[in-house]
Amino acid sequence: MERMDQQLRFLKEIDRLKSVLRQSPLLDSSRRENSAEHSWHLAMMAVTLGEYAPRGTNMGHVITMVLLHDIVEIDAGDTFLYAADAAHARAHQAEHAAADRIFALLPADQAGRLRAVWDEFEERRTPAARFARALDRLQPVLANYHTDGGTWRAHGVTADQVLDKVRLIEDGSPALGGYARELIAAAIEKGFLAPCRQDRQGADRTP
Amino acid sequence: MERMDQQLRFLKEIDRLKSVLRQSPLLDSSRRENSAEHSWHLAMMAVTLGEYAPRGTNMGHVITMVLLHDIVEIDAGDTFLYAADAAHARAHQAEHAAADRIFALLPADQAGRLRAVWDEFEERRTPAARFARALDRLQPVLANYHTDGGTWRAHGVTADQVLDKVRLIEDGSPALGGYARELIAAAIEKGFLAPCRQDRQGADRTP
Repeated sequence: MERMDQQLRFLKEIDRLKSVLRQSPLLDSSRRENSAEHSWHLAMMAVTLGEYAPRGTNMGHVITMVLLHDIVEIDAGDTFLYAADAAHARAHQAEHAAADRIFALLPADQAGRLRAVWDEFEERRTPAARFARALDRLQPVLANYHTDGGTWRAHGVTADQVLDKVRLIEDGSPALGGYARELIAAAIEKGFLAPCRQDRQGADRTP
Repeated sequence: MERMDQQLRFLKEIDRLKSVLRQSPLLDSSRRENSAEHSWHLAMMAVTLGEYAPRGTNMGHVITMVLLHDIVEIDAGDTFLYAADAAHARAHQAEHAAADRIFALLPADQAGRLRAVWDEFEERRTPAARFARALDRLQPVLANYHTDGGTWRAHGVTADQVLDKVRLIEDGSPALGGYARELIAAAIEKGFLAPCRQDRQGADRTP
């Protein structure tokens, strides 16, 4: 049972992802979301929105990718999408070290296979990875839109910053990118999201 | 965008699964688990333990099944595995009504497809469904074993009751059923799980 013991040890270890908190709130604003339930929601987005992936995308592969993409946060924690570049660089290093440790709990053949799936998501080189990353970027747009601004408001994020992230959604799925742009426009109109900094500076100068 | 709006409405609705609490604790015993993160963990079990499914099982299908099997709990709540039969009968009815409501948020063609996946899990008629159900039964055994008895202790559940549930694990995967039996034997030995009621009654009668 050595092999099965290793697999169960891995499954026990990743239970800890349920205690890693993200910035995003639940849609009822009752508390912050954790990375395990976030990963479930992304997988359900893949189940539901697969028709907007490029033709021929292996959706089973996309689902596996989103299920395991965040397990490195057990060691590295969650990095806010709008954190400074230096924080993202530190996180990148910590996440790779975490991947080395956590996947190594599995039998070697399986560790290699699942690590390759994780690397694929990180490197964004395949259509499946680009679609998976698009879902991961779309989810906070939905969360913030449906919580009257959520982390955009809390952290003073402006529309130009959000639109900059939308490019990655469009890159994975033009249809989902278009949907995100519509939500962002609606959020600005409803006052949930401040227009871009430049606009605001311009507005400040206007008497 | 009518179709995509319906899909996003469904994805918004199922966010509520993150607030449905199960009896099971997290493995660090810090709090009770919710049904969304439980579904993620089951999906990761499917990713990791797929080699113990009957040959030819479509694991992508198993993963979709475990991801969506609990969304009916948004309306019906979670029913404890060792609740009385009457409670399970009531839950069964409430869950079917919930499935009618929640899947209907989706475009009709997709609602029909995903409802069929949900029904397949419920009816346990295919090898994929039996394997998915086996994972769903194995997960609390792991959780209770790794939390020194967890809900077994809290609710006075005895080994004969647990072993009765293990049959369904064996039915989906003999290898995982064998693993569950080993954990249960170890739990009895360590004193995390009381032996069967009959044994205890016998012991009580002994001076």
